[in-house]
Amino acid sequence: MADKKMVEQITSMEEDFAQWYTDVVLKAELIGYTSVKGCMAIKPAGYAIWELIQKQLDERFKAAGVQNVYMPMFIPESLLEKEKDHVEGFAPEVAWVTYGGLQKLQERLCVRPTSETLFCDFYKNDIQSYRDLPKVYNQWCNVVRWEKETRPFLRSREFLWQEGHTAHATAEEAEERTIQMLNEYADFAEQVLAIPVIKGRKTEKEKFAGAEATYTIEALMHDGKALQSGTSHNFGDGFAKAFGIQFTDKDNKLKYVHQTSWGVTTRLIGALIMVHGDNSGLVLPPKVAPTQVVIIPIQQRKEGVLDKAYELKDRLSNFRVKVDDTDKSPGWKFAEAEMRGIPVRVEIGPKDIEAGKCVLARRDTGEKLECALDELEAKIAELMETIQKDMLEKARKHRESHTYVAKNMEEMGNILNNTPGFVKAMWCGCQECEDKIKEQFAATSRCMPFEQETLSDTCVCCGKPAKKMVYWGKAY
Amino acid sequence: MADKKMVEQITSMEEDFAQWYTDVVLKAELIGYTSVKGCMAIKPAGYAIWELIQKQLDERFKAAGVQNVYMPMFIPESLLEKEKDHVEGFAPEVAWVTYGGLQKLQERLCVRPTSETLFCDFYKNDIQSYRDLPKVYNQWCNVVRWEKETRPFLRSREFLWQEGHTAHATAEEAEERTIQMLNEYADFAEQVLAIPVIKGRKTEKEKFAGAEATYTIEALMHDGKALQSGTSHNFGDGFAKAFGIQFTDKDNKLKYVHQTSWGVTTRLIGALIMVHGDNSGLVLPPKVAPTQVVIIPIQQRKEGVLDKAYELKDRLSNFRVKVDDTDKSPGWKFAEAEMRGIPVRVEIGPKDIEAGKCVLARRDTGEKLECALDELEAKIAELMETIQKDMLEKARKHRESHTYVAKNMEEMGNILNNTPGFVKAMWCGCQECEDKIKEQFAATSRCMPFEQETLSDTCVCCGKPAKKMVYWGKAY
Repeated sequence: MADKKMVEQITSMEEDFAQWYTDVVLKAELIGYTSVKGCMAIKPAGYAIWELIQKQLDERFKAAGVQNVYMPMFIPESLLEKEKDHVEGFAPEVAWVTYGGLQKLQERLCVRPTSETLFCDFYKNDIQSYRDLPKVYNQWCNVVRWEKETRPFLRSREFLWQEGHTAHATAEEAEERTIQMLNEYADFAEQVLAIPVIKGRKTEKEKFAGAEATYTIEALMHDGKALQSGTSHNFGDGFAKAFGIQFTDKDNKLKYVHQTSWGVTTRLIGALIMVHGDNSGLVLPPKVAPTQVVIIPIQQRKEGVLDKAYELKDRLSNFRVKVDDTDKSPGWKFAEAEMRGIPVRVEIGPKDIEAGKCVLARRDTGEKLECALDELEAKIAELMETIQKDMLEKARKHRESHTYVAKNMEEMGNILNNTPGFVKAMWCGCQECEDKIKEQFAATSRCMPFEQETLSDTCVCCGKPAKKMVYWGKAY
Repeated sequence: MADKKMVEQITSMEEDFAQWYTDVVLKAELIGYTSVKGCMAIKPAGYAIWELIQKQLDERFKAAGVQNVYMPMFIPESLLEKEKDHVEGFAPEVAWVTYGGLQKLQERLCVRPTSETLFCDFYKNDIQSYRDLPKVYNQWCNVVRWEKETRPFLRSREFLWQEGHTAHATAEEAEERTIQMLNEYADFAEQVLAIPVIKGRKTEKEKFAGAEATYTIEALMHDGKALQSGTSHNFGDGFAKAFGIQFTDKDNKLKYVHQTSWGVTTRLIGALIMVHGDNSGLVLPPKVAPTQVVIIPIQQRKEGVLDKAYELKDRLSNFRVKVDDTDKSPGWKFAEAEMRGIPVRVEIGPKDIEAGKCVLARRDTGEKLECALDELEAKIAELMETIQKDMLEKARKHRESHTYVAKNMEEMGNILNNTPGFVKAMWCGCQECEDKIKEQFAATSRCMPFEQETLSDTCVCCGKPAKKMVYWGKAY
């Protein structure tokens, strides 16, 4: 059994979900606070998760024809201002560089909050002919948004992300790429992070500054709040016109390109914590667990125990395995391994060795099972798959049991005030109703899902004819 | 033969080395200029080289016990000022953020030029006991130095790098880590980049701001100028005292940690260009070539030629291979592949197919050889190794034939003004002589090499007794 002392150090999620989150983030050693307000230090255990996300997402990108590049981190003010909606959306929340060394700059530079303007400036020179298209570029980098309230991974002044920026000859091809990348994100969230997501389109009110259409994947956290987990934008030719990005097409005519952008951030680590975590700490799906198996020797000073532990580690070289041979008690080691979310714990002591077996404990279910030592590799391989699948299923069930239908404002209020979750409700399409729902329940439209249902004929708010079914929710 | 038109587009290196460099960087599509003064856009062909450098260096780091983390990109002014030498060295060349959104900041933040101060601030809280040591952390990130004159990869206001920062219980352990990482860099430069380097220590004048000792690897470019290609610093306990980083040791006494830092940058791409490139463009060693083999079909419209080209590509799945099936002429394709530095070109046409063979052309030597189709995999594998080895050997020979000995200032002047290269010369150890050499010849001390020789008993400059042999040179 896990050591109580360590477990007691974290607040239970039922008591105070926000405090539980903070406790897990700190006790699992994912981040450290810094003297830089609103910015976090990502510690090895946190950064290793990001590396696994990067690696697997980047492989998918490359298979989808994406090329990585790197643009400057500074945006001259005049460049930021070229697209009207875009600058309105971002100018209030950027950091401004005004001095270079001892010299005051002639023009202020903002630290990129996102890089549409830089890619446009680049594409303007790099694209001349239809032969130069499509451009399907991406960069992994840091961005800055001057947030007032910050929380580790979920909202910080600086964060890490990838931002894809593409340019196409036709509107159809741009829309196709926008949806293709959204589908990549959704599949990645489900298959790698074990997080089921709702795919849909944002309303006009909620779309990205400068986009024609924003698509999103929305996940539901354990506390019933939604988390926007990835977005993909179709810009049409709006940016191209603002920046003058034209190409000579096959018919010898000068045309504007059509553009997209899409991104996911270190926020996904916050999603992992809040979807899978429990009162013993982090629970990581095997595909993004920096350590997949921890081997904990019992009575490790007895002859042969440590040797056996290392022998097992060597046999499990297909997995990310650690032996905890520190001088802590087994109970303490169990609690630490649980806090860090390691999917499988292997317990091996003198009696086990004699009997030719060991004990395996699953982090996600707490289940313990005996395993013959000569079946270990096969059993671990099987468990990795089972756990990955079961965690997705469990999260899906949680989401389903926390997805409600509301037909009027009273029902919506009852749900959002008492049993937070996704609320499916019909909507007339006008922003007044969105504003009203936000005002009354502090909930926002999360998306108009691709999978539409007809729950009733009238808008949940104003009673006028409904146009779309919308997912609503309180959100991070 | 390569198409002349394309080749003629670049200046020859004998005519104007600086212009040749710029031409290669642009024609090989490594970078694009941007509207952000002093900052470059790294295009796919350039970034792919950086990704290969990152991947192989990161694997070496992990094998050496290094853990990746991520610290904020902003440094509050008060934090930067804590270590006196450090702030003096860097303050004149940092970018200052003074506004966050519409609000003037109470304290200015600089964009990190390097992150010693941030790691110290972090370690101060994270290190309490000897059990917390050593810390061997690294981050891959962007940094900013407000340079006046910039050149792609060699000196730009923003660049990408890795910076390792470690903390140790003893001075011995810190020195050991400093040298260990320098050796990693040297081995990486030679084995992966095929660039031979001189390992040594910087003089007091040339060491890093705030360091007790700076070690360096120095490479010689084709034009006889030196390039500092990686550095490793031992800080002793200077930063620890300035920041108050103390730990309780096994003997229950409070002690200061000893620290190191070490880094390499995108500048290494500049080194690859200037060590290996020629008048046809880039020449890449196989280990960092994004495309290792290009298959160019001859008379590709004839039946079976393209199919055969793709069949060969499939058979070469252990390598990074592309088929150039564009509608350009073979000569043009040859020139493009040469410009991009692809190590091996495979030519395959109807006659070759009939004869069951193909032609292989080496980028580094221009040598062409026939290869039976059923021996292709083995031959390519062999060529990759041979080319990698031969390129290092060629670079080593160039360096050796451009390394000179000077025993007095006249000799030194003759060499540096007529046949630039490394100049080995004895030195008394005082900065006045360094200053004089810089003033007269625009050359600097590159390092005091670990492999010392006694060339004479007196300083090349003042004639007083010599203490060290030093490598001198003009440098980038």
